Amino acid sequence: MAARNATAAVIGAGDFIGGAIAKKFAGEGFTVFAGRRNGDKLAPLVADIKAAGGQVSARSLDARKEEDITAFLQEADRQAPLEVCIFNVGANVNFPFTETTERVFRKVWEMACYSGFLAGREAARLMLPRGKGAIFFTGATASMRGGVGYAAFSAAKAGLRAVAQAAARELGPKNIHVAHLVIDSGVDTAWVRERIKEREGAEALAKLSPDRLMRPEAVAEAYWALYQQPRDAWSSEMEIRPFGEKW
Amino acid sequence: MAARNATAAVIGAGDFIGGAIAKKFAGEGFTVFAGRRNGDKLAPLVADIKAAGGQVSARSLDARKEEDITAFLQEADRQAPLEVCIFNVGANVNFPFTETTERVFRKVWEMACYSGFLAGREAARLMLPRGKGAIFFTGATASMRGGVGYAAFSAAKAGLRAVAQAAARELGPKNIHVAHLVIDSGVDTAWVRERIKEREGAEALAKLSPDRLMRPEAVAEAYWALYQQPRDAWSSEMEIRPFGEKW
Amino acid sequence: MAARNATAAVIGAGDFIGGAIAKKFAGEGFTVFAGRRNGDKLAPLVADIKAAGGQVSARSLDARKEEDITAFLQEADRQAPLEVCIFNVGANVNFPFTETTERVFRKVWEMACYSGFLAGREAARLMLPRGKGAIFFTGATASMRGGVGYAAFSAAKAGLRAVAQAAARELGPKNIHVAHLVIDSGVDTAWVRERIKEREGAEALAKLSPDRLMRPEAVAEAYWALYQQPRDAWSSEMEIRPFGEKW
Amino acid sequence: MAARNATAAVIGAGDFIGGAIAKKFAGEGFTVFAGRRNGDKLAPLVADIKAAGGQVSARSLDARKEEDITAFLQEADRQAPLEVCIFNVGANVNFPFTETTERVFRKVWEMACYSGFLAGREAARLMLPRGKGAIFFTGATASMRGGVGYAAFSAAKAGLRAVAQAAARELGPKNIHVAHLVIDSGVDTAWVRERIKEREGAEALAKLSPDRLMRPEAVAEAYWALYQQPRDAWSSEMEIRPFGEKW
Repeated sequence: MAARNATAAVIGAGDFIGGAIAKKFAGEGFTVFAGRRNGDKLAPLVADIKAAGGQVSARSLDARKEEDITAFLQEADRQAPLEVCIFNVGANVNFPFTETTERVFRKVWEMACYSGFLAGREAARLMLPRGKGAIFFTGATASMRGGVGYAAFSAAKAGLRAVAQAAARELGPKNIHVAHLVIDSGVDTAWVRERIKEREGAEALAKLSPDRLMRPEAVAEAYWALYQQPRDAWSSEMEIRPFGEKW
Repeated sequence: MAARNATAAVIGAGDFIGGAIAKKFAGEGFTVFAGRRNGDKLAPLVADIKAAGGQVSARSLDARKEEDITAFLQEADRQAPLEVCIFNVGANVNFPFTETTERVFRKVWEMACYSGFLAGREAARLMLPRGKGAIFFTGATASMRGGVGYAAFSAAKAGLRAVAQAAARELGPKNIHVAHLVIDSGVDTAWVRERIKEREGAEALAKLSPDRLMRPEAVAEAYWALYQQPRDAWSSEMEIRPFGEKW
Repeated sequence: MAARNATAAVIGAGDFIGGAIAKKFAGEGFTVFAGRRNGDKLAPLVADIKAAGGQVSARSLDARKEEDITAFLQEADRQAPLEVCIFNVGANVNFPFTETTERVFRKVWEMACYSGFLAGREAARLMLPRGKGAIFFTGATASMRGGVGYAAFSAAKAGLRAVAQAAARELGPKNIHVAHLVIDSGVDTAWVRERIKEREGAEALAKLSPDRLMRPEAVAEAYWALYQQPRDAWSSEMEIRPFGEKW
Repeated sequence: MAARNATAAVIGAGDFIGGAIAKKFAGEGFTVFAGRRNGDKLAPLVADIKAAGGQVSARSLDARKEEDITAFLQEADRQAPLEVCIFNVGANVNFPFTETTERVFRKVWEMACYSGFLAGREAARLMLPRGKGAIFFTGATASMRGGVGYAAFSAAKAGLRAVAQAAARELGPKNIHVAHLVIDSGVDTAWVRERIKEREGAEALAKLSPDRLMRPEAVAEAYWALYQQPRDAWSSEMEIRPFGEKW
């Protein structure tokens, strides 16, 4: 792996998708700068990347705070010029419409939309003077349609998608690639497996083909594919799902 | 006009679209309950409706405050059973992506998305026990796509659309018609005419065909058409534009 | 009912939707000119409309033949000026992808797409010199997405939708309202009930709520609502489904 | 380059996109089997691929004839097992709606939709027994929306997209990756440059930045990226455009 003089910031570097993305970009020579709410949980990711010979720093980050986002990305940019910023904060909740509290509605929006806007804007401010960069956002089925019980989550995700579109249209001509990756599937995480168990039972979970869920590594590959696109053939949105998924 | 024992609440009963909707439903026999930020400005609307023989009450309303929305709709429901709730608060702004402040982003969302969620939820709570009602939301081009400079406005409007979809899917089977009306055009208001003058010059504005912009009354007719739909042929979204509009 | 000096042509005036549309427009004072493959089957429709005091003519029509479409619409125009043309030919089939014959693929396209293009074009030719008119096309769920087994049907319906869009964009500014009505549901016909029985059993059919399927009359009302739209608030597409439908 | 025991068939192997795709897959070790209407024009492509050490055969192909498509793909499959089938036949025309002849409408559909269905179906028949493969279709802006003058082209392309969707949903769970690549831009070809000159003048063409148009090689890279996707993260559609393109 050839080291690059470039940083890839991962906001929402959780145990699954975010961590896999961090590892992928580290493996491709980027200096990774990883953040998540509870920074202590980043230790295994940092250890893994370092063990594989990669460059990485990490710290706690409350993505809902403007000053925290700004400081985080500026610090990332000091490691090496910020070239990639990936926003991957999730906030999946489901409540009957009339039981959705204003607190939930606001908090989900702050986590999944507002913080994404802040991250994209700060990354753009750092990238524009250098005339290059990539800003990628993680979307979900809820980004595309408001399903039953998803008023809060879908409002936030659809809002994030709109931010990505507006940014892509404005920043594209300035050589900054903005894209929105729609993960139209459950990703293979403990949380998703637990929900499947709840809904379909332990037996259904046990019989679950490994292909039904998406590996975090596959999501990381999709981000890498977006980053590899030549600038005369950029996608502003990419939708991925496992081969056996109904849609 | 035959009076109905039913209230139509209009949240965002401004001088143009909101006012026209209020007049239409009053003209069809509904008791109208109208709210807008500055209630003093509602006097002419109230006078017009009363002069035409309609039933109407009005008051100030800060749609971004949960307790205010709740109190407003409960008061509406005390006039006569709440049968129609129309959310029509606008917040159109345009800023370069990197110059969009967190304050603007948050405020536009509170006005155009969060308040719409609160209004829809409270209306649903009042309507569900009676097993009927209609909740309609005003959308815009920005509800469908994030254009250059519209990160804040489009994130809010796309979020509102997602709220409408989630509510429609959940409440439709309970006989509550939720719909989102996409106004894909400038509406003929002083504000829109001023923007056209800024962008295209006074001469262009002077030559502007009356057909290029949509009359507020036409929007009101569209809402009435949605309300008139039999329940085996409901639209959850309707997109309207003037006949000469490019799209 | 006040008679109008205007013809509404209905291509595909079958026993359900097409017939209901014909009755609705006749009831609103239009001279109706109805066509379907087997003209003999039009006798009951003609009798019903005449019994209700309406004006109607009808004849056999092979909508897949250019000369037949042309002659049909010219004849319609001779009754009274052609003001409305509704294209309602269906061709719903479902086959596994690899078992879809070229003959089926071609025939479904000729019935559901090619004939719609011909009808729209001929109607436009008659309407343009008078500078007014409405051309409406019946769409389906398959117009919006290609589901399993629907390669032939969906290719035809998606093609028809594209024809409607291109025509709407070109003819709208010339005061001809082109719209595409998406019926996202089974309509209550003998054929649909038979399919439900096949798929879900006789018992499921017997228990079927009258609200689950759409009445042909409700579709006719939707077309009438489109026709009633003022020209500064036209919809180019309207999607309707019963209140209890999943989507 | 490691040779693979696998054929990539390219239907519509023209001088630009199709040829670039053929070269890319040949360069990755596939045996390429290329077809276009006039097979004589394939000589330079064959020469280029062979000069680069690739495996390639080519012949004339009338994609609108079922027997020709069938024979072509069976012959492709005899070179080595058919693993990739790319359908890239174009038929871009623009006519005012009322001047679109039935002959044009039909011919464009036969070239851009019907032939794509035939190719996809035959490829699926060959791939299904082996339980693997990739079938990719080239789409355009017109696949997504019917613009003014594009009734014929857009009806065909939207139809092709529906075929791709139906096939993707049915064949995906059988491990055949079906995808539709939307090229939302002019590709850098002599034909496109000529149209720009017509519309915007020779000077505009001369000043045209090399980034405004998409290189055929970039399209080939996009197909390669689709082929590289792991099966737990397949895209069924990918939309690409140059970084400076308006959308």
